[in-house]
Amino acid sequence: MLENLKKQVFEANLELVKQGLVIYTWGNVSGIDREKGYVVIKPSGVSYDEMKAEDMVVVDLEGNIVEGSMNPSSDTPTHLALYKEFSDIGGVVHTHSEWATSWAQAGREIPCYGTTHADYFYGSVPCTRKLTDEEIKGQYELETGNVIIETMKAKQYKPLEMPAIIIFNHGPFSWGKTPKEAVHNAKVLEEVSKMAHRTEAINKDIVSIDKILLDKHYLRKHGANAYYGQKK
Amino acid sequence: MLENLKKQVFEANLELVKQGLVIYTWGNVSGIDREKGYVVIKPSGVSYDEMKAEDMVVVDLEGNIVEGSMNPSSDTPTHLALYKEFSDIGGVVHTHSEWATSWAQAGREIPCYGTTHADYFYGSVPCTRKLTDEEIKGQYELETGNVIIETMKAKQYKPLEMPAIIIFNHGPFSWGKTPKEAVHNAKVLEEVSKMAHRTEAINKDIVSIDKILLDKHYLRKHGANAYYGQKK
Amino acid sequence: MLENLKKQVFEANLELVKQGLVIYTWGNVSGIDREKGYVVIKPSGVSYDEMKAEDMVVVDLEGNIVEGSMNPSSDTPTHLALYKEFSDIGGVVHTHSEWATSWAQAGREIPCYGTTHADYFYGSVPCTRKLTDEEIKGQYELETGNVIIETMKAKQYKPLEMPAIIIFNHGPFSWGKTPKEAVHNAKVLEEVSKMAHRTEAINKDIVSIDKILLDKHYLRKHGANAYYGQKK
Amino acid sequence: MLENLKKQVFEANLELVKQGLVIYTWGNVSGIDREKGYVVIKPSGVSYDEMKAEDMVVVDLEGNIVEGSMNPSSDTPTHLALYKEFSDIGGVVHTHSEWATSWAQAGREIPCYGTTHADYFYGSVPCTRKLTDEEIKGQYELETGNVIIETMKAKQYKPLEMPAIIIFNHGPFSWGKTPKEAVHNAKVLEEVSKMAHRTEAINKDIVSIDKILLDKHYLRKHGANAYYGQKK
Repeated sequence: MLENLKKQVFEANLELVKQGLVIYTWGNVSGIDREKGYVVIKPSGVSYDEMKAEDMVVVDLEGNIVEGSMNPSSDTPTHLALYKEFSDIGGVVHTHSEWATSWAQAGREIPCYGTTHADYFYGSVPCTRKLTDEEIKGQYELETGNVIIETMKAKQYKPLEMPAIIIFNHGPFSWGKTPKEAVHNAKVLEEVSKMAHRTEAINKDIVSIDKILLDKHYLRKHGANAYYGQKK
Repeated sequence: MLENLKKQVFEANLELVKQGLVIYTWGNVSGIDREKGYVVIKPSGVSYDEMKAEDMVVVDLEGNIVEGSMNPSSDTPTHLALYKEFSDIGGVVHTHSEWATSWAQAGREIPCYGTTHADYFYGSVPCTRKLTDEEIKGQYELETGNVIIETMKAKQYKPLEMPAIIIFNHGPFSWGKTPKEAVHNAKVLEEVSKMAHRTEAINKDIVSIDKILLDKHYLRKHGANAYYGQKK
Repeated sequence: MLENLKKQVFEANLELVKQGLVIYTWGNVSGIDREKGYVVIKPSGVSYDEMKAEDMVVVDLEGNIVEGSMNPSSDTPTHLALYKEFSDIGGVVHTHSEWATSWAQAGREIPCYGTTHADYFYGSVPCTRKLTDEEIKGQYELETGNVIIETMKAKQYKPLEMPAIIIFNHGPFSWGKTPKEAVHNAKVLEEVSKMAHRTEAINKDIVSIDKILLDKHYLRKHGANAYYGQKK
Repeated sequence: MLENLKKQVFEANLELVKQGLVIYTWGNVSGIDREKGYVVIKPSGVSYDEMKAEDMVVVDLEGNIVEGSMNPSSDTPTHLALYKEFSDIGGVVHTHSEWATSWAQAGREIPCYGTTHADYFYGSVPCTRKLTDEEIKGQYELETGNVIIETMKAKQYKPLEMPAIIIFNHGPFSWGKTPKEAVHNAKVLEEVSKMAHRTEAINKDIVSIDKILLDKHYLRKHGANAYYGQKK
């Protein structure tokens, strides 16, 4: 069942390790089959070097296990909330990658200080508010999804134009049209986080780039008139 | 004698190198056989690429060599003090890993700035006081163990809920139910130390996470009602 | 056509990855055949592990494709502007390498704090002004080349004595007598950028080295009386 | 001639690369045969992956080439000055390793902030004064040796108790009883430099460790009553 998607999700999970975004079991990738309404996700707490493609767990959008002998990632309710709300995404990633997590712990959005950032993220990468005591004591992982959605809406960001966010006190989530693209965005977020900190360390008075340069770079790569790369 | 434990301790020592926690001879791992009351530990000043499993030294809890042709690690008295006091630990690790050592040199406890930390350490990772002149001139390595115990007690930490500490002016010790788990905790400590510094660099006014989030993350992974990972 | 130059440019592109200066498609190298007036450059948005030597695109100095089935790098107009103005250069490199880009994002020139810098760059590595709105909305990549040239002239730098620059809000360009040398300079720029930041972090009152030491090191390696290395 | 020493010096040069202390041609190692009064040193400006053991150059203590078809390292006069003055050293290393060089560029001695440092260096690692204009214009590399010696004397350091120094505006030199030990000390200096900066970043009010702890660690490893490691 969903062998191809399982393979994609499995390989995207391994790519997290290869890109230095995850150690031990500190991350997870999922992918969705929109037609069937099923999500494939990494099992919880399983180490990357023991994991196989067939260990991926299939759940429906309510979190019921459809196939698989292991528990799905404990972050599954967060993934599901994002798939339900962001109808055009196909993959979701969560990591504790060191630089994005440091920004998340610091509780600050990541300003757009250069064209590397603008090539992927159409504005500052947002940081959620803290979860309330009730949210933490309640359905914590679901509420994490909810606060992501709340933040994206407040910022008026479209999911594919801002394919990443950081959770205050926690770490990053990213997404994309496919699991692979979600991992790609997780890596870019990490690089951008690292350079943003260093930019501030080198010049404490620096401000975000101008809107016109943000538009230029984001749109030369992603807009209707994009001219970066090869014709598809 | 204790071939299985020797193998575990040997492999845990090599894992320190693989995880980037140790260069040259700058670290050591031990493990205990609680039934026999014997501790297996790395020999002193022997380089990791020449070391073999049979080079591990067996000592009793008073530090007498039971088996082995080499001197045990010069830090053996510290390890023994911890095994005597913390009856539920099975492995101890000492390293000079770069980030945890930098915090140790700075003489500050490592605040809990995020859920990565909360998943493993149930509060701030403590930093000992400086050793007194008498302690340094006396049984220095034993006194290092004593000041660890004194600090853990003053903080009212249970050893397996706070499986790491940093020694002022020196570096980290960690422990766990097994030598392998002690190494795992040494790696997590290093990651958490690195991100704690960066968190402060990104936001100098940041404070520790709230107790309710600390509880949520520590207990979803370690408490009686833990739901992270697979059923054991 | 230009098989040898294609091979050089291809290998120089791979060297960017090997030296840790580029991830994904975040960089490009070109080389020029001065006699023919043709430039060989990486295709746009093609990943390094799929790329072959024969994928390199040949363009004339006006940017017309002379040979090749793919689009050349979107930064081609910048490369061409540099080849037209700096008649003694043979290779050009653009990257988003993490430290040089952080300085570019910070909008500061990179001071010469030591002999490592002085061995390669005959003064501070300059940072361009921001591009104007008109330049961004117009022929952006060409204007990027123009602002490099404007900055080099204002500083009275000879291209081979200052073989690198950083673009405000963007990242570094470097060049050299060959594509290989241009990559070498990109790597040195990255090392020098990293150490310059750390130098300031260790001593906030530090100033650039004296002119006499800059001359000594630059000229012992590059001047008419150079005595570093082997006789050629 | 001196085949064994050539092999040692060659391997020590490669170890610099392996330990991440050198890129390109940015470093050199030498060794001395005290009986013959000859020094073996890396040729100037030759890259590490092309170099062979037989390329090592043999010079006498006045710098005359005794054997070898290539120019010796341009830093040879510095090495020779150290061998003449420090009669108990057998190997000398120069690098531009990133952290030690950053301290050198910052013009600050490296304080002893912990036992890692105290295990190898018996006090702060000194930083020379700037060279004068006359020294730079004159026999620059010889004067670099002279200012090292002047600094060591002023600090009353014995060469084997303080086997490293940093040259203001330039970078580190280290030494030891053998070329291999000199490289080991270069690596330790790099680690210690990195942790010293981070220590200050984590706690700006931190001060050097007490003399009694410095003595304890240095002497448990190096003194007449050393008890670290195995009996030799």
